[in-house]
Amino acid sequence: MTDLQVVANPGTQEIIITRSFDAPRELVFNAFTDPDAIRRWWGQRDSETIVDGLEARTGGRWRFVERDKDGNEYGFHGVFHEVTSPVRIVWTFEFEGMPGHVLLETFSFEEQDGKTHMLDSSVFQSVADRDGMLQSGMESGAAESFDRLDEYLAKG
Amino acid sequence: MTDLQVVANPGTQEIIITRSFDAPRELVFNAFTDPDAIRRWWGQRDSETIVDGLEARTGGRWRFVERDKDGNEYGFHGVFHEVTSPVRIVWTFEFEGMPGHVLLETFSFEEQDGKTHMLDSSVFQSVADRDGMLQSGMESGAAESFDRLDEYLAKG
Repeated sequence: MTDLQVVANPGTQEIIITRSFDAPRELVFNAFTDPDAIRRWWGQRDSETIVDGLEARTGGRWRFVERDKDGNEYGFHGVFHEVTSPVRIVWTFEFEGMPGHVLLETFSFEEQDGKTHMLDSSVFQSVADRDGMLQSGMESGAAESFDRLDEYLAKG
Repeated sequence: MTDLQVVANPGTQEIIITRSFDAPRELVFNAFTDPDAIRRWWGQRDSETIVDGLEARTGGRWRFVERDKDGNEYGFHGVFHEVTSPVRIVWTFEFEGMPGHVLLETFSFEEQDGKTHMLDSSVFQSVADRDGMLQSGMESGAAESFDRLDEYLAKG
């Protein structure tokens, strides 16, 4: 059991995810900005994640491609608005399967007693965009990906 | 009279501005990406706008400083997620007087009979952020700035 919570109130344009990780926040933060780490935890277990770019600085671009076991590829990209180690990341996010639909995602990390509490807030251009993301299975996808991050952090 | 409309429904995280300009959309689009143009229309009439940066491409940074008649300076900055001439601009926007509060703004331009219809949609990280922007006088500020853009376009 994890303490994952996903809040998406009806009619709003946001999804708020909170989760704790049993690791100092420097390590959690680095897992978001290091391509080698991303490859190991981002996306689903039975997929491969290709990091096509990850420039973790203001104005830097990122692009990840998730390749599933059947070889289908799903691209995601955006730009970093802010990278403040180890506290906060603000980036844009676009799924290339739905071009032109962009969201703004903010990750905030707080540390307490050696654990890191993450707040992951996404705001969408419309309620329909937000609802579409939920209907795509985003909630179970995020849960699995953050479980993988937990396992990555435990390996040290 | 202009056809400016500002929609900000209670409890939502967005502000949607629509306005027409009596000019082809290439000219309107260029007025958003050319530093010399920005200096002439962005901000209030009795202020001076300094373009500290404007790299109109994905990942490019922008920063404008508005200096009022008393010499007070107000900085604004962000990064471009998308620049598709002459159709669409998506950027992040942060007022430096409220650091850490970021919005995602999308400008879309459609042309009809030589006129350009602009849709300017901003989504905020919270309803409180959105309401704060409205209370800061954003609506009258935008109206004045877009009137100045109209005048700039009329001068050719």
